[in-house]
Amino acid sequence: MTPIITAFERSPDRGQGLARDMRVRWALEEVGQPCEVRLVSFEAMKQPAHLALHPFGQIPTYEEGDLALFESGAIVLHIAERHAGLLPDDANARARAIAWMFAALNTVEPPILELAIAKFVEGDKPWSEQRLPLVKDRIRNRLQQLSARLGDADWLDGAFSAGDLMMVHTLLRLKPSGMLGEFPTLAAYVARGEARPAYQRAFDAQLAVFSAAQGKL
Amino acid sequence: MTPIITAFERSPDRGQGLARDMRVRWALEEVGQPCEVRLVSFEAMKQPAHLALHPFGQIPTYEEGDLALFESGAIVLHIAERHAGLLPDDANARARAIAWMFAALNTVEPPILELAIAKFVEGDKPWSEQRLPLVKDRIRNRLQQLSARLGDADWLDGAFSAGDLMMVHTLLRLKPSGMLGEFPTLAAYVARGEARPAYQRAFDAQLAVFSAAQGKL
Repeated sequence: MTPIITAFERSPDRGQGLARDMRVRWALEEVGQPCEVRLVSFEAMKQPAHLALHPFGQIPTYEEGDLALFESGAIVLHIAERHAGLLPDDANARARAIAWMFAALNTVEPPILELAIAKFVEGDKPWSEQRLPLVKDRIRNRLQQLSARLGDADWLDGAFSAGDLMMVHTLLRLKPSGMLGEFPTLAAYVARGEARPAYQRAFDAQLAVFSAAQGKL
Repeated sequence: MTPIITAFERSPDRGQGLARDMRVRWALEEVGQPCEVRLVSFEAMKQPAHLALHPFGQIPTYEEGDLALFESGAIVLHIAERHAGLLPDDANARARAIAWMFAALNTVEPPILELAIAKFVEGDKPWSEQRLPLVKDRIRNRLQQLSARLGDADWLDGAFSAGDLMMVHTLLRLKPSGMLGEFPTLAAYVARGEARPAYQRAFDAQLAVFSAAQGKL
């Protein structure tokens, strides 16, 4: 049965693939599972029909028969558990790959999200300019630690896994800031992720939504 | 084999149980699995031996034979997958419980952590007083949505699960702020979690560490 996911009707990042539906699209492409995409407007996301699927009024959601899920981490893990290609067979290696998924979402992403808030929500506040370097230094602290762990390996723990998928996409959110360039090891890691054919197909699919909304197709 | 977890040698919250080792202690108590606790100092957490276990120099970690894990979410999920009591048997209900784990860590916790940063790291900055209401309103937004979803249910989705464990502990971090009191539904939910015998045993165990460090035992 083809799963149905939700994505922004109008991409806030203008098709750069930074929204969280991209993680689910990429995971589905990695395992060769097609999906249907239902686009939702910002208004519809706050209405009861969508809140029934996603209590926090966000995207993506995932519907597959009787199952409805929210949270990109949970959806990617669900996909990774049901299809080969995103988690190692060895039980210990599998647990470690899942640990990297949580690290991406609970340790690396929060300071990166805070930078987005500092820029786009608090950008006009009187403290914005003075505070921004503090916010960026918190990110640098995490990037330094992540870069040290990755070293000269291609991926975080053996072969490419759902942990790398979540980490690469989390780091991609830093692209507009230019901060990735300060950490060549991580910039190369992210580039390896972006070079994967499954990433490219997912990226093109979300870009097509943006282009269509712009009337360019 | 008895797993070994790490916790702060000196609890920054003075035994209130707000550090992330509490989530792992609580999960282990729920499933009736004993553990050994290795205490680490703030200095030791930044040294190579600990960084080999936890790339971001934090607690908790989890060692069990050949397996070493970090990230409380990943550790609790690992425990929940290997012991009965924290995840439903039904596959769809299980996926939804895991979604609530991710929601706690990636949607509810980030604004709560930001409040801690605003208070303890930026509390002496010139913008602190003016900015705090914005930070709190972002938390209120999430609490309102969570409260609406919970309604008059005891737990987020059927029986108590690892999703509730992570959510309750995430919300507990708001206790010092008094904000939980604005959402009686959530205050009662947190109180139900705290009333569980497994929570109490875990709480007492971490408090004993603090008390011993204070020379009170």
